[in-house]
Amino acid sequence: VGESGTKDAILLAARSRFASCGYDRATVRAIASAAGVDAALVHHFYGTKERLFVAAMRFPVVPSELLSGLARTSRGRVGELLARAVLEPWEDPEVRAPGMGLLRSAVSNDVAAKMLREFVSRAILRPIAETLQAPDAAFRASLVASQIVGVLMTRFVVGIEPIASVAVDDLVVAIGPTLQRYLTGPVRRPG
Amino acid sequence: VGESGTKDAILLAARSRFASCGYDRATVRAIASAAGVDAALVHHFYGTKERLFVAAMRFPVVPSELLSGLARTSRGRVGELLARAVLEPWEDPEVRAPGMGLLRSAVSNDVAAKMLREFVSRAILRPIAETLQAPDAAFRASLVASQIVGVLMTRFVVGIEPIASVAVDDLVVAIGPTLQRYLTGPVRRPG
Repeated sequence: VGESGTKDAILLAARSRFASCGYDRATVRAIASAAGVDAALVHHFYGTKERLFVAAMRFPVVPSELLSGLARTSRGRVGELLARAVLEPWEDPEVRAPGMGLLRSAVSNDVAAKMLREFVSRAILRPIAETLQAPDAAFRASLVASQIVGVLMTRFVVGIEPIASVAVDDLVVAIGPTLQRYLTGPVRRPG
Repeated sequence: VGESGTKDAILLAARSRFASCGYDRATVRAIASAAGVDAALVHHFYGTKERLFVAAMRFPVVPSELLSGLARTSRGRVGELLARAVLEPWEDPEVRAPGMGLLRSAVSNDVAAKMLREFVSRAILRPIAETLQAPDAAFRASLVASQIVGVLMTRFVVGIEPIASVAVDDLVVAIGPTLQRYLTGPVRRPG
């Protein structure tokens, strides 16, 4: 079959398994087995389950890389950096096309919605919440998700102007302070 | 046919016409003609084209009513009031179900996306931008749209926790300041 054939078989098995079991319950071992290869080979090609998911679903970023970048940032700049890290990859048409497909499928298909919800919660929202160590950290993380989902939907899927056509830098400046407040500012009525 | 039969015929014609022509190009006259009634009767039952659209598509709010409510509000509270005016109607399952249908159709169907985009731009974003009278008013209005679309998507369609289950008051307090800044605060890099 050759290496590229083996990789294709792994990605195909991964897509099928993530869709049928969701992200949390799918295992690298079961995916390897469905592809007829050893689990060690899957780890060799793709590293972690997270990276296998990113490769199989063409998810636009590797969350753990994005988050380790943020962890090296000063606390006051994390909103702007997160906005940039999320939005810039979409400027590449090869990221944008599958990314839009993922967004569309999360809206129109309950199975895809569950899979993406689990991946986003596990790989992005939970690590963010753990880093924040605040009592309402999960709420804060989901607020961040709401603004990011909204920008991606209006810019790329529904096409609301002028958000659909402004430069990514303008969007980062506008959205960054929102993400910053959701992460580190007040988000509840005092008292 | 009777009044309810006539109204049903008008709503059916309206849905068909809005879908085929978009919101901007559809006219009450053409909808009346397709329903086999006089345009005056459509105005008698539904008032404006905006209200006919809201009735036909079961749009969750009447934008002109929402905006005239905001116009009577002090400038500093407009973000929180807008958040409340948009989110509270969705607590009613009879609003939520068709609202989710509209959101889903805007994502999965280009014709529905165009129709909703035109309606939202014409009936909501443009009046907001005109009220603001700022040079970047259109950008501000589309930023507002991005956060509102994102909250509706994560709360009702994709179901990201805990946004999906918090009380509407918590969401209003969290989102209100974002809408406030998009409407009246800084949204661009100075200079």
